[in-house]
Formats: sequence, structure tokens, C-alpha cells
Amino acid sequence: MSKKTNEEILHFESDYMEGAAPEILKRLSEINYEKTSGYGTDLYCESAKAKIRKECKCPKADIHFLVGGTQTNSTIIASILRQWQGVIASQTGHIAMHEAGAVEATGHKVITIPNHNGKIDSNELENYLETFFADGNQDHMVQPGMVYISHPTEYGTLYTKKELTTIHGICKKYNIPLFLDGARLGYGLAATGTDVTLSVIAKNCDVFYIGGTKVGALFGEAVVVPNKNLTPHFFTLIKQHGALLAKGWLLGIQFDTLFTDNLYSKISRNAIDNAMYLKQKLTEKNMRFYLDSPTNQQFIIMENEALKELGKHVGYSFWEKFDKTHTVIRLSTSWATTKASVDKLLTYF
Amino acid sequence: MSKKTNEEILHFESDYMEGAAPEILKRLSEINYEKTSGYGTDLYCESAKAKIRKECKCPKADIHFLVGGTQTNSTIIASILRQWQGVIASQTGHIAMHEAGAVEATGHKVITIPNHNGKIDSNELENYLETFFADGNQDHMVQPGMVYISHPTEYGTLYTKKELTTIHGICKKYNIPLFLDGARLGYGLAATGTDVTLSVIAKNCDVFYIGGTKVGALFGEAVVVPNKNLTPHFFTLIKQHGALLAKGWLLGIQFDTLFTDNLYSKISRNAIDNAMYLKQKLTEKNMRFYLDSPTNQQFIIMENEALKELGKHVGYSFWEKFDKTHTVIRLSTSWATTKASVDKLLTYF
Amino acid sequence: MSKKTNEEILHFESDYMEGAAPEILKRLSEINYEKTSGYGTDLYCESAKAKIRKECKCPKADIHFLVGGTQTNSTIIASILRQWQGVIASQTGHIAMHEAGAVEATGHKVITIPNHNGKIDSNELENYLETFFADGNQDHMVQPGMVYISHPTEYGTLYTKKELTTIHGICKKYNIPLFLDGARLGYGLAATGTDVTLSVIAKNCDVFYIGGTKVGALFGEAVVVPNKNLTPHFFTLIKQHGALLAKGWLLGIQFDTLFTDNLYSKISRNAIDNAMYLKQKLTEKNMRFYLDSPTNQQFIIMENEALKELGKHVGYSFWEKFDKTHTVIRLSTSWATTKASVDKLLTYF
Amino acid sequence: MSKKTNEEILHFESDYMEGAAPEILKRLSEINYEKTSGYGTDLYCESAKAKIRKECKCPKADIHFLVGGTQTNSTIIASILRQWQGVIASQTGHIAMHEAGAVEATGHKVITIPNHNGKIDSNELENYLETFFADGNQDHMVQPGMVYISHPTEYGTLYTKKELTTIHGICKKYNIPLFLDGARLGYGLAATGTDVTLSVIAKNCDVFYIGGTKVGALFGEAVVVPNKNLTPHFFTLIKQHGALLAKGWLLGIQFDTLFTDNLYSKISRNAIDNAMYLKQKLTEKNMRFYLDSPTNQQFIIMENEALKELGKHVGYSFWEKFDKTHTVIRLSTSWATTKASVDKLLTYF
Repeated sequence: MSKKTNEEILHFESDYMEGAAPEILKRLSEINYEKTSGYGTDLYCESAKAKIRKECKCPKADIHFLVGGTQTNSTIIASILRQWQGVIASQTGHIAMHEAGAVEATGHKVITIPNHNGKIDSNELENYLETFFADGNQDHMVQPGMVYISHPTEYGTLYTKKELTTIHGICKKYNIPLFLDGARLGYGLAATGTDVTLSVIAKNCDVFYIGGTKVGALFGEAVVVPNKNLTPHFFTLIKQHGALLAKGWLLGIQFDTLFTDNLYSKISRNAIDNAMYLKQKLTEKNMRFYLDSPTNQQFIIMENEALKELGKHVGYSFWEKFDKTHTVIRLSTSWATTKASVDKLLTYF
Repeated sequence: MSKKTNEEILHFESDYMEGAAPEILKRLSEINYEKTSGYGTDLYCESAKAKIRKECKCPKADIHFLVGGTQTNSTIIASILRQWQGVIASQTGHIAMHEAGAVEATGHKVITIPNHNGKIDSNELENYLETFFADGNQDHMVQPGMVYISHPTEYGTLYTKKELTTIHGICKKYNIPLFLDGARLGYGLAATGTDVTLSVIAKNCDVFYIGGTKVGALFGEAVVVPNKNLTPHFFTLIKQHGALLAKGWLLGIQFDTLFTDNLYSKISRNAIDNAMYLKQKLTEKNMRFYLDSPTNQQFIIMENEALKELGKHVGYSFWEKFDKTHTVIRLSTSWATTKASVDKLLTYF
Repeated sequence: MSKKTNEEILHFESDYMEGAAPEILKRLSEINYEKTSGYGTDLYCESAKAKIRKECKCPKADIHFLVGGTQTNSTIIASILRQWQGVIASQTGHIAMHEAGAVEATGHKVITIPNHNGKIDSNELENYLETFFADGNQDHMVQPGMVYISHPTEYGTLYTKKELTTIHGICKKYNIPLFLDGARLGYGLAATGTDVTLSVIAKNCDVFYIGGTKVGALFGEAVVVPNKNLTPHFFTLIKQHGALLAKGWLLGIQFDTLFTDNLYSKISRNAIDNAMYLKQKLTEKNMRFYLDSPTNQQFIIMENEALKELGKHVGYSFWEKFDKTHTVIRLSTSWATTKASVDKLLTYF
Repeated sequence: MSKKTNEEILHFESDYMEGAAPEILKRLSEINYEKTSGYGTDLYCESAKAKIRKECKCPKADIHFLVGGTQTNSTIIASILRQWQGVIASQTGHIAMHEAGAVEATGHKVITIPNHNGKIDSNELENYLETFFADGNQDHMVQPGMVYISHPTEYGTLYTKKELTTIHGICKKYNIPLFLDGARLGYGLAATGTDVTLSVIAKNCDVFYIGGTKVGALFGEAVVVPNKNLTPHFFTLIKQHGALLAKGWLLGIQFDTLFTDNLYSKISRNAIDNAMYLKQKLTEKNMRFYLDSPTNQQFIIMENEALKELGKHVGYSFWEKFDKTHTVIRLSTSWATTKASVDKLLTYF
């Protein structure tokens, strides 16, 4: 029942078009009439937090459940930055482009450095920081107070463990926390060949979140703060930012379910398997990729006339114009994608 | 599985302790694998909006679905106020007291006027506005730019149609929009003897919302703007405030269900019936009420020792100290309360 | 050349109607063509700071020069408060009433407690803090993060040393800084019988400012921070708040002059002498005072018809309606007031 | 008495190192004991406004006097933008780089487009706006709501009348106000060969200011709003931003003086004459210019060793590294610069 398309169309626009893993719906039904205390003070949240701490090998981490990505980004950033500080991000970072100025609305500048297929480059980051702190005029400028990266990025790309460690080292050198936006983290962790695990992230990031909205939950993002001193009074700030869910147990039970029996990994892997299958088959069909993505988002350069034809049968995301006669589109698989649907999709190429 | 109490305890702390009307869970399951477009652009939202517009007798109203109350309050207020304006509220208004400064965080002052069992008094409101705009020094002061009321109030009380109309008349005289926070609106509409209907509200308020979180939904608030010119670019501001749900259809389907076959009314009426039953029986038992509430929240003055005993069996909300030996507590029924549980509750008085 | 009055009228509306002590104008002329570095990095600022530190007996204090009162208040408050905090003030505090929401514009709530002739009461303050921090629900509320007082207050009244010490003790108990707005501090220090000196203030306040605008300077407020750790990156925040004067030496030279040869004390004493003379004479004429002010602002209750007559000859400040037939007005002396003008003023009573 | 240099050094660091035109100091002295009403309601402000309106050929313009540049920029921008909007500026715009995040602190994004010697390019501006408003996803992005330019720019460069008109046309097409920061406007108007006059600016900008701080005043910027509907309640917003000077007549009398007998033009011309003389002579000495500036700021590329030697005798502003062995520096003349001092300066090259 997508708005502008009919049932005959195959939908690969994004990874948030379906509901939730059936295990989640089942548990929501089971506890529907249970009386549960509000604002995340319940035992489902406790249980989910314990499981996440264990998975992250981070037994003392503070964990908070928020509803969606933009809200999580701006709440974290505004809670950690001091008033004289801004957050460094890639020019194509979600917070820099597609959050309607949510960070600036809290009074902070997003300081952009160049984009490399969605990633920032550690040398450029170090250069920026070195120059900034060497310059005697810094007192008239916004001071960098946090580094924001996403993993996977907006372009589906991933950092390596070495890259993460290097960036974290630079951050530590300048005493700036590193924040990893993991709205699609499951797909990053499940990618073939990655050496970045949850515990690698927990060791190298000062704050990050594990995305639920795009990875099998109805909604929800689990914020992990390995060193809880980083975010004093975070509960009050979540409330102030309108990000505190009254029925917090809805988040607890979803993450508890996702972190039971490796569900989060399994469903993430399904998205990856289907994306890699799609990638391989499209490669065989000589389709041209905009970049090499190891995750569930694939970016394809299509000739405009061919794209028009494709659009009659397939829902895709317009990404950007490539040149006068070509367009970059995104095709996304998700935790719920079936191989049958990919096979059908392939018939249109 | 409430945090600090065991299964043996009866819970009457609040009206957001259960999940959702079973009709909602059923529909969520049915469409779980349907591919639906994001951010409220789907047909479930369209359908819910049509039903709400009809119920409000307001065919041109703009309708937006947000997730929770604080987020809805601060998004609406910040979207409508101009920078030189503040919002008038009762001293006990939710925005003045219990939202962690969410309104101030957007740069606006909450201007308080006296509380009368949760309500504002129209004479005091008019007086305030008259004095303000008569005073030549107003240029150094925050200008009142909106009036905020809640219905039911924090104390379960209700405005009459005449009171609403009078307040609205004052607002119109000073060209200030009237905003009604309806987080518990269902319980207000279902109260015995009220002459305030949805269409009365739609005629007398410039913006209001129909609460779902506390009235049968998992979460969600339906914002109604009878004259859509009041809130330009509201979609972008919802995003900026972190209040835009990616899977907006989750809100659409919930409100669509609540506004099908009078479900919202029916389940609200259940809470009222049980609250009135509780009220009558407690009156017969000579319990003392803090104020006369016609809705699902009942405020009782209890002797401290008796309260301690009650607490062994019943979960309640501490409201405030009454005097050295007495305390005001709140008991709430909800859409899910059963008469059996009220009968059991009564055995402890 | 006051706007609405002619030269024949005597002006006692406020204490910021004249320019500056002639010693200041003289020095400004002397250094007019000197090339001086900007933003307060010059030697005049250094010299002024040294003198103020000495006067405050506070050799390690951080000192900053800002331009005006509202700007100083909001810059200090926003710089010290964390995002989850608000500032406590009297209901009639300047920041609560007459700064156009400047504090809220920085995202912080002004938490008001009762007014007692412009002052706050230490018992009420302690009560407020005790209740707040005892209440388990504080997480949904704005946390008090600073106490704001003014000395003299908006009503010309003064704290005693004992009152200041008590308030400071309460602040320390709750680990909340005490901020004293000294826009008219000179008049407070020069008042007869006060036991509050600059060093008493420096010992009992975490941050305060010495007003220049209303006490002999063209403009300027000297912020003193006895413990400089309180305000990290304050220079950048002054810039961010638009409160950094390019030609900072204009502030330095003014305060350097005011703190040379006791000029600040002497000119303040002139205002007090004239105010006390006015007060005594008006008392002898059986005029009725609204409250007992020991400083340069005197508040008089006048019969409305008599006031109308007075207005033909005297400029005064309307303060508030007293009752149907009486009005409270303010008459202010200043550093520049002459006894001759007071004698002339007295002829109209 | 500049901080780090001795009297022997020649100062060409900036144009705000001296006090004010002597005519201003004289008038300040003359009215020092006059009693004048506050906050800009006085007759000196009225007189100055009338003269500025006449000079701008803009008889209905609203005029406001503020104290400094950053404060003026952020007050204007925050007053005009709506919450969903940001301001477009060159990447090197003062608001983008050197105001410590003052614009973001009011909740708004600075949207940057490329810098061309300090200017923006009208084609790039139009492209940006065209793409933005063509893109269906704009609802998740900050909407451009104002264009900011400076004249002269940070690099001393000037727009032509044709460029201004073109940019204004684009702004009108997209219904976006054009704001011109004229902190150094006098030097722009006095430049040889410019066809941009005050009335050209008043016709092509929706809001602009005439800088006093850097052009002969002690401090002060005169904001001109040709169509006053653009800035409702601007007085209150000036107060809220801490930018309202109590003794507003200090600004009135300064601008009244500057706009009497062409003083503003004459002293600006002095800076230009000396700058052009310096430029010509340095050219004859084969010095290399970073860019061709027609105004009082000259940017020179110097070999690092030669620069070290120069620094022993001359105060300059470090601008940026040019390459490993060269540095860009700025030399500024001002309204107070003498030909003798330039001649002396030239002896060091």
C-alpha cells in the first residue's frame, strides 16, 4: 500500500518499507495487557541492555533506547557538545544534509570535511584538527568538539577496523569524542569481509547506536555509551528533545528480541545475501555501479531512457544526476527481502 | 513486568502501562510485509486523516502524526511562535513543569498564569493580555504568542464548551492561536456530561492533538490544524525536531483503526466507566477526593499510614504532600482497565 | 534632547540619561589616535583588570568587559548552565521580566521564586532546592543550575552580608553557582550602612559584574569570575553572543579610569547623597514611599491627579498601578545628579 | 599601547585600531550632561536616521543602530529567517567562519557556496537555488531563506552594480531577502571606479548595514531596512539578542556626525587614498599581491624570511600560508591613516 505505486510494482526504494521481524510482533502481542512501568524503567529494557552490553563486551556501558535516527543524532550531539563546539562530519553526512538542520536547531555548527564515498579520510581529519588548533585565531571560530561518522555510510560503504582505530586515535589526541551513527549497523556487521564487530566499535567509539528502524524493528535505536561519564543527565536531555517514549518497554522488548538467538545478525545477513546476489547478477548483466558497496544499498548508474522503463516495474530511490544522459539510483534490500523478489527484479534488467 | 513491583500488585499508576487495543496489533500483523512508503506519505495515513477530518467536521484540516506528547508540544509551539513570542500556560501545565524545558530549549518562554484545578481562568487570561498590550514597556518583554491548555488537564478536569468558546474569543481578540493538548483527549470526550466534542474543539482551537499513546495506541498523537496556513513547512519542522517517524504508516494504521467503528470512543468510555465506578465506591467508603475529576484520573487524599499499607498491594502515583499527615495520590484507569481489577482495588480501601 | 520632553522638564527617569564621567571622556580623547589591538587584548584592559582584581581582593579572578546588562546576563548564564539546567531568579528579576526572553532564547528556563522587594528569600530558596532534589521525578524537570540575584535589586534594595553569605552557603550545598547582577553595583556599595563590599561579593559570588553603563561609563560591564574554571572558553562565547567589542580598549580605559583614585566610589556616593537628601525631604513633605530603598532609586506612591500635575514639570518612570487612585513611580538620581536639580525637583512636591 | 608591540612599530593590522573621528568626540563631550532618553528613542537617533534615509534615497526605511558586526549579523539573520530556513553565504563569509557559530547559536544553518575572492558568483547561486527547489526531497533539508554578502568582502573586493542587481534578481525570483554586511561599507563606497552607491544598495538589498566601528566611529552599525515589513518586532529582538544599547543616543550622535558634511565619505576616502598609494608603491617595488583589492585592505604574498624581517618593524595581519616559503598578509589602512605613516611603512619594503 505504498502511496504512488500499485501492488504490481517491486519495491526496492529503501530498507524501512516493511514492519518488523515476526518474533517482535509476537512478543508485543504476548505482553500487550501486562502493566509495565514507563520511560524505559521496565525489566524488558533491563534485559535488552544486558544483552547488548554483553554483545559489545562492554559491561559498564550506559544504554538508552530512542525512537528514530534524526532524533538520536541531534540528542546525542547536543548532549555532548558544549556551546562553543561543533561536530565534524563528511559533507554528505546525514546530519549535514538530510536532517532539516536538526543539529543547528540545537545551536551547534556542523563542520564539514570532504566526502569519500560517504566516508571521511583520517588524514584530512587530522589535517583539519592540526591546522585548527595551531591557528591563534581559533577563539573566533567554532571549536571542533565531536567527530561524526556513519557505518555503513550514506553510500553503503564501511570503515575497516584499521580506519576506525586511526580515526579514534586522532580523536583521542585532540580529546574529541567519536560518534558512530549506526542506523544501518546490522548490515555493516553482517557484510562479507568486514573486520568491524560490535566490540571493535565499542572499543573505538565514545558513543554509537545500533539501528533498529532499518534492521528489523518497527522503530528504535539503541544508544551505547561505553563510558557513561560522557553523557551526564542524558535521561533529562532525551526528554527535553522529545525523544523519550512513554511506553519505553516497546523499545526494550524489540531490542531484547533482536539480541536473542542472534536474530539481529541473521536478518541482517539476509539483506546482505540478497544484496550481494543482486550485485553479482547485475555485474554479470554489465550494469555499471556508482561505487563498490558491500552492504544492502547498491548504487547503479543507469541510462535515463532505460531508467524510465525500469520505473514502470520497479520502485527505486533517485540518488543524483550522473551526467546529462545518466542517473544514479539506489536499490536497497532489507531484513525482509526474499530471493524471489530479487529474481523478479533482475528480470527487468 | 513493571520494574519495582511484583505481579501480585495491582497497577493504577497511569494510563500508559498497557500496549494497544488488540485491533491495532491485528492490523500491524496483517500488513507487516507490505511495502509501504515512508514519512507518512502512505495510504494508511491518508485514510486515517480522512476519518479524523470527518469526525472533527473539518474537511480542510491539516493533519500530522507524531510519536509522543512532549515532542508534539514543543514541535507545535516552536513551529507557530515567532522569536519574540512565548506561550501562555497554567502554572501546572505539562509544558511548564514536566517536559524538562523542551519549550525553552527551542528558545521560547513559557509564560505562566494561575492554575485552577489544572485549568486557566478566562478572566485572568484576558486581564493578563489586556495589561500586557496596554503597557508601553512591552517591547522589553516576551510577547504572548499562543495560549496552551490541556483537555483533560493534568488534574483530570475539563473545560466546558462555554469556557472554551470564551477563551477562544479572547485569543481571537488578541490574534493569538489557541493550542489544546489532547494527550488524554479520548477520556475528555467520553466523560459524562461534557458538551465538548471533537468538532467543538476543532471550531475553537487553532491547533490541537488527539492523543493515542494514553488512549489505546502503542504510541502516537494526531495533530489537527483546522486552518493549515497556521503551520507553514510543518513537515520540515517535524523532521528538524526529530519527531518524524520513518515508518509513518505505523501511526497511520493506528489512528485509522482507532477511528474505525468508534473504537476510540468505546475504549475511552471503558476507562471513564471504571473511573466513575471507582469514584462512586470510594465516595461510599468516605474517601476524600482532592478535586472533582470527571475523567480517568482520580486524586485522593490519604492518611500517610493508610497509604503505606495501600502501597503493599496497589501501585499509585504520588502527586503531592497534602499536609504533614496526608498525601495526594492519583489512581488512573485506562482503555484496558477491567471492572474486576477495580473491584479488587476497592478491597484495599 | 530627550525625546518626548522639552528642555524645561527635570529628568529623574533613570540613571542612564547622561554620558560619562568627564575623566573618561578626557582619556578617550587622549588616546584617540593611538593604535591599540582589538578584542580586549590591549594594555588598558590589562590595567583595568589589575585594579579591579585588587579592589575585589581576588588576585586570580578572570575579568571580562562586555557592553551592556542584558547581553552580560544572557552570556554569563548561557555560558555556565548546562543544557538540562535553568537559572533561579526572583519573579521580578530583570532576566525574568525585562530582557525580552534573552535567557530562554539561549535554551534555558528562568525558574522563578517569590519576590520580596526585589530580593529572594534564602529560606524559600533552600526550600525550593530541597524539595526539588528530594523529588524522585526531577528527571522530567529543568534542574536548577544557577542562582541569579541583583544588588541593588530592581527595587533599589540591598542584601546584607549575612544574607549573601547564607544564600551562597545554600548554593554551595547544592553545588550551584551564585551570580550577582551588579548593573547598579556602585550605588549598592556606596549606600549608607551596607556591609557588602566588593571583596564580600567576590568571596560570596561565583560570578558577578560591576556595572558601568549606569554608573559613570558611557557603557560597559566588568564581569568578575573569582574562580576562572567556571567559565571555559568564555571569550569564544562572548563572541558567539555578539558581545565582543572590536575596540575592547574602550571598555578597558573606562574601567581603568573608574577604578583610579576611587572615582567609581565617589560618583556613586554622589548619587546616594542626592537620593538620601530627596528621600528625607519627601518624607518631611509626607510623601508615601512604596518601599524603603537605601540606593539611588526611590519609589513613591502618588495620587493620580497629583501625578498628572507633576508630570508637567518632572520626568519620572511609571512603575505600576498601586490602586485605582494611586500610582507607584520611580525617581532615580545618578552619578551626575546635582543637588540644585534635586532642590528644583522638590519644589514640585 | 597595542599589547604585544612597542611604540616603535608601525601598525597596519586592521582598520579598528584607532578611536573615532574627532568631530564625534567633540559632540560626545558637548552633550555629556544632557539628559537623553534611552534605547534609541532620542532625537539624535531621529536626526541620524533622517540623514541616512536621505543619503539612501529611501524615505520610508526602518533604521536601527546596533553596536558591533557579529551582533548585527546574527540579530538580523535570526530575526528574518523562519525556523526551517538557513542563510546562504560564501565559504569565506564572516558569518561562516569567524563569528564563533553565532548564527548557528540562534538555530540556523549557514549554507555555504564557493568563494571567489570573497564574493559569491551569481550563476552558482542561481544553480544552487534552482537545484534545491527542483529537488523533491527538499523537505528533509534546510531551506535557503536569505542570501548574505559583504561589501567590501573579507578580501577587500567589491561587487559591481550589475552583479548586485543580478544577485538581487535571483533573490526576488526565489522570494529570498538579500542581506549586505557593510561593516566596511564606507571604504567600498569611496573606492575608485565603483558604481555602487548607498542608493544602489538600498534599491538592491532587503536589509544592509552601514559600518561605523571600522569607519570612524568608536563603535556602531546602522541597519537599514528599506521595507520595514521585513522585520516585525525588531526592537524586541535586538533586546533579546543583547544588542540594545541603553544609551542609544551614543549611536545616534555618532551616525549623525558621520552623515553631516559628508564626513563618512571624506574619512573613507582618506583610507582609500592611502591604500591606493601603498598599492602603487608596492607594485613599483615588485611586491606580489594575492588579489586585486580596490579598498583599504591589501593582501600581499611575502617570502617567509622577508616577512620575519618586516615583522620587526611593522604590525600586519597573518592571513594564510601561501606555500611552503610564502605567506599571505593583510595590510589595512583606515580613516585615520596618514600618508606619513604609509611612507614610513614603504621604507621597510
